[in-house]
Amino acid sequence: MAAQTATADSLTLPTALHSGSGAESAGAASSQKPSVVKQFRGWAGNFTRSGRTTPGIGVAKDAAPKWWKVHLFRGMVNDIRRRAPYYWSDWRDAWDYRVVPATVYMYFANIMPALAFSLDMFTKTGMQYGVNEVLLASVLGAVVFAILACQPLVIVGVTGPITVFNYTVYDIMLPTGTNYLAFMCWIGLWSLVFHWILAITNACNWLKYVTRFPCDIFGFYVAFIYLQKGVQVLERFGNDSPFYLSVMVALLVFMIAYACGELGSSPLFRHPVRVFLKDYGTPLTVIFFTGFVHLGRMKVIELEKLPTSAAFFPTADRGWFVHFWEISVGEVFVAIPFAILLTVLFYFDHNVSSLIAQGTEFPLRKPAGFHWDLFLLGLTTGVAGLLGLPFPNGLIPQAPFHTESLCVTKVEADTEENGEAKGHYTWKRTHVVEQRLSNLAQGLLTLGTMTGPLLVVLHLIPQAVLAGLFFIMGYQALEGNGITAKVLYLCRDRALTPGGHPLNAIRRRGAVWGFVALEILGFGATFAITQTVAAVGFPVFILALIPVRALLLPRWFTPQELNVLDAPTASPFTMESVGGSYGGAQGHGYDGQARGEGEVEGFAGTTANGEDAKGVMLHGLLLGRKSEEELAELGEHRGKARIQGDVGASGDNIEMGRVGVSRRGTSSRRGGLE
Amino acid sequence: MAAQTATADSLTLPTALHSGSGAESAGAASSQKPSVVKQFRGWAGNFTRSGRTTPGIGVAKDAAPKWWKVHLFRGMVNDIRRRAPYYWSDWRDAWDYRVVPATVYMYFANIMPALAFSLDMFTKTGMQYGVNEVLLASVLGAVVFAILACQPLVIVGVTGPITVFNYTVYDIMLPTGTNYLAFMCWIGLWSLVFHWILAITNACNWLKYVTRFPCDIFGFYVAFIYLQKGVQVLERFGNDSPFYLSVMVALLVFMIAYACGELGSSPLFRHPVRVFLKDYGTPLTVIFFTGFVHLGRMKVIELEKLPTSAAFFPTADRGWFVHFWEISVGEVFVAIPFAILLTVLFYFDHNVSSLIAQGTEFPLRKPAGFHWDLFLLGLTTGVAGLLGLPFPNGLIPQAPFHTESLCVTKVEADTEENGEAKGHYTWKRTHVVEQRLSNLAQGLLTLGTMTGPLLVVLHLIPQAVLAGLFFIMGYQALEGNGITAKVLYLCRDRALTPGGHPLNAIRRRGAVWGFVALEILGFGATFAITQTVAAVGFPVFILALIPVRALLLPRWFTPQELNVLDAPTASPFTMESVGGSYGGAQGHGYDGQARGEGEVEGFAGTTANGEDAKGVMLHGLLLGRKSEEELAELGEHRGKARIQGDVGASGDNIEMGRVGVSRRGTSSRRGGLE
Repeated sequence: MAAQTATADSLTLPTALHSGSGAESAGAASSQKPSVVKQFRGWAGNFTRSGRTTPGIGVAKDAAPKWWKVHLFRGMVNDIRRRAPYYWSDWRDAWDYRVVPATVYMYFANIMPALAFSLDMFTKTGMQYGVNEVLLASVLGAVVFAILACQPLVIVGVTGPITVFNYTVYDIMLPTGTNYLAFMCWIGLWSLVFHWILAITNACNWLKYVTRFPCDIFGFYVAFIYLQKGVQVLERFGNDSPFYLSVMVALLVFMIAYACGELGSSPLFRHPVRVFLKDYGTPLTVIFFTGFVHLGRMKVIELEKLPTSAAFFPTADRGWFVHFWEISVGEVFVAIPFAILLTVLFYFDHNVSSLIAQGTEFPLRKPAGFHWDLFLLGLTTGVAGLLGLPFPNGLIPQAPFHTESLCVTKVEADTEENGEAKGHYTWKRTHVVEQRLSNLAQGLLTLGTMTGPLLVVLHLIPQAVLAGLFFIMGYQALEGNGITAKVLYLCRDRALTPGGHPLNAIRRRGAVWGFVALEILGFGATFAITQTVAAVGFPVFILALIPVRALLLPRWFTPQELNVLDAPTASPFTMESVGGSYGGAQGHGYDGQARGEGEVEGFAGTTANGEDAKGVMLHGLLLGRKSEEELAELGEHRGKARIQGDVGASGDNIEMGRVGVSRRGTSSRRGGLE
Repeated sequence: MAAQTATADSLTLPTALHSGSGAESAGAASSQKPSVVKQFRGWAGNFTRSGRTTPGIGVAKDAAPKWWKVHLFRGMVNDIRRRAPYYWSDWRDAWDYRVVPATVYMYFANIMPALAFSLDMFTKTGMQYGVNEVLLASVLGAVVFAILACQPLVIVGVTGPITVFNYTVYDIMLPTGTNYLAFMCWIGLWSLVFHWILAITNACNWLKYVTRFPCDIFGFYVAFIYLQKGVQVLERFGNDSPFYLSVMVALLVFMIAYACGELGSSPLFRHPVRVFLKDYGTPLTVIFFTGFVHLGRMKVIELEKLPTSAAFFPTADRGWFVHFWEISVGEVFVAIPFAILLTVLFYFDHNVSSLIAQGTEFPLRKPAGFHWDLFLLGLTTGVAGLLGLPFPNGLIPQAPFHTESLCVTKVEADTEENGEAKGHYTWKRTHVVEQRLSNLAQGLLTLGTMTGPLLVVLHLIPQAVLAGLFFIMGYQALEGNGITAKVLYLCRDRALTPGGHPLNAIRRRGAVWGFVALEILGFGATFAITQTVAAVGFPVFILALIPVRALLLPRWFTPQELNVLDAPTASPFTMESVGGSYGGAQGHGYDGQARGEGEVEGFAGTTANGEDAKGVMLHGLLLGRKSEEELAELGEHRGKARIQGDVGASGDNIEMGRVGVSRRGTSSRRGGLE
């Protein structure tokens, strides 16, 4: 790191670029375990340093500005500068077959849980929120983010956590007799303010501390919310034929969708058939079982259907515009703490969705932009509040599923030395069809769903089918989760564990156990609080995981262990928007023996990350010296240059660490193939 | 073959043994496709030749006796001679842990379908057959075969086909107002006569033409009968809560049992846990779900339970001994055609069970004995008739499951050249715990089940659980079937098919399609007739498959293709009882370029089979010259010598052909591990 700082100061760029000395000396200087104090210094320093290295405004080369010196608006401005050159290509690139199945798949993957959540909210918020509100919230999110966002791959809609948030607020405020929707509107408006404050003050720079650790825990939590909602949907049906038929249908939906997934990732059938099964298996299952319950003897059983209301009208008897003034002044201020919790939730949930959707396993070529998207999220939150909609934000696991369904993959058969195929094979992602059309189109399809005829069709879907969908989505999310992968590793017979398994790099098996135990504890605490009236506070638990990772975990685990057990969520390329990543790509030098370098050592690939770090550094420095016009060009140029680096180096190497383990879950299950 | 015949005539044994010229010249002489006429000559010749090469009675060395010269009793006598030396070791060898889980597993795997079939017969034969009859039939079969049979691994009990047979006879005879049980008794008595005739005339020698082709079709048929019975059990429950709860429970039983199977063959958990899951997973699932339906809201739903009657008493109001004289003389003779059909069924079903239970994939060391076991089967059929029990015979798939559960397997991790484990691993069977105790013990446990308290316990099992059991057994049988393996091969993406796949040896892909189409046609015809009133005739269909294979298939497929597509069911070692196998081990020379040798060429291993053929030949010749006393010793000696040959050569090689494809189904699913 010292070497890199020197590089930065003296600007001897060609040397740094060609000799690779930065990365090497970083690796060499990293043998010492840093003290927590130093780490915190580094942590805070890192935050402001990243501000410094972002381009556009001339900064003194030598001074490391203090962390409280926030360069307002810088993150957002840079996000737009970085992404704007790609805007038209986002539309041009949409001319690709993968956009079609991705749109259809996302439409169903987005709308189905949305419908199920709408059912949940409908019953738990005194019918204030219904199908139309949830659909409109999805449309709002999709249109705004597809057209305006820096990260158009991120699918925005109504999530499980916001459902929990909404009905917990309802439960808390019901005794006060307040106007619920007006109160929610104030929460949205306050939240808009807080979001914008966060966006303006570049708060997303802290995202660099969001490693896989909190993401995996949150993903695990969301998966369990799915499973729980599935059970809750079924639970309501009493104790008669409709209940048991519903359970039967839910189990069948789960089994068929599971079989489709297994077939899709098996070596059976030709490639197009497998792709078809993966892309359309789940929607077709839902359609089939909607008809199935009318067959034979089942037709006389009345199943609970999805409750819907008139087309384009709010569920409650009101206009779309919420009368937010019909509330006492005191309650306007009572909304503030709730708005803070909502902001905490969205800051984490939306950004983590974005991080995972742009995770290291995807060979992305277009830059990310977290600050600007947070600003947009504030906007949609405020608008949703005014219209009395549940607040939309980034969806897990739909957002990463979206990116996966846009992946162009090729199958590579392992060959032996004599060239004969061994029958083992791997999927290799070549690129992602990065564009805005699939997100917009699925939003417009959702809007179309709000028309009268399609609402009638929606009303045909038995709730049992939605329950089955919850089960399969929860199962798939669990299957692809990093915690699951580690638990499976621990359960695995050591005699049958491949020698090259990344976690084998950890000598102290107790460390793996400890790490997994901590993750499960974190999940357990969050899930437990969700079951209580204090559910509204769960975002605080999730957010607290970030400092736990940054401050406590290094006390218990060596840097080498943490490097193997944890990893940056997104590639350094994606993290450029927030000033680089923590534990992955280093180069935002806090002094000497900082933790970062230690983590370069290890399976994730010293060279790959070292070079990436150098690349980011170099990029920042170069940009700082260029005019605005040149910037765009350089961005374009760099974007192309990155293709090589991302796919070849960081993409593949880091993938080994996290996705390699859960390959079956993430890469082959949902990976669109072409 | 010419070379071998020469060897036989001149008795230059050491030359044949060491030079291997027999096998080589057989391979060399096999390029010609034989005419059908020649084949039939060979076929008939083969039959008598096998009589000739069996030892004990001096035969003229040169003359090939005509097929109508049957040496009465020779098969049975030789079976006993061959097997008797191992009798005491069959009890001594039972001191092995594998016997415990095999007993428990077999008890459940035998009794559960038996109970389900009893339910089926109970409703379809006017309550003439119930649980007690079925249990006693199992006990009868188990005790007789465990103590007296030459093949004590073969589990004997009440099968699906005999259930179909019984209620079809009931449907046919009901209008005549005959005494059903007396009529069944006469069928049993006639059948005893026919069985004994077959046993005395060495009819099992024809078994050498029973290749995997009819076995796979029959296995497929039985699997579908299982699935159909599962549906039929559920179907009866009307259209109310009990029905839907039953379907739900059946699906859950299937899912859990499936998951247990998957876990058991996954690399998860330590070895003992996996073994436990495999051995006791299904029984524990049944026990769990018997309790499960009494939990929570389900307890108020009345589920159909298994109907039982008083301990040790027949279900109908009668004594155990059937009054077989209370029937008209005419009806006694009407029973003859039914008895012939029953005999055809049992000849095929029992022998195929024995063949599969001693299939090429099991490294068996003790000789088989088909003739004697057919004699015993006649006995149990007669006795069952006299007691008014459904006739027991060899169970598919339980009999092969029994052998599998007695397999001692070790896991071998594939290692790369540098010795590092690659994570791929294979199961290797080292030997089978061949003994009589597990069969006897499961029979005695079944007898214990007939006591009052245990009948009460049985009465607790919901029929829905049995339906789920039918589903999982049908699924497992299908999964391990050779037709499924071929269909999966055809469905497989060619790009992802391992280069070493045995079926790749066939150039003409249409040949595989044609063969599979024929198999499915055979299955379809048999299954279709089972659905009609002519169901009783289905054994004829199955039996007809044997000449189809021997006479028609060679017209449409080349010997090389047939060699890959089909294979002998059991190893030449097992087939020794019936004079060697067809298409596998040759050496029962019909002249020159007979089909047999052509089939030696191919993946199944020329050397392995060639040597086996030689071995069998050698054995026969040697035995012909020895005294009775020496015979036993020689048998003992040879049995030990075979260990090498069977495990190393034919076992492994032929396994590639059939079981290698369906390894997951048969070897790892039910393979006992130790």
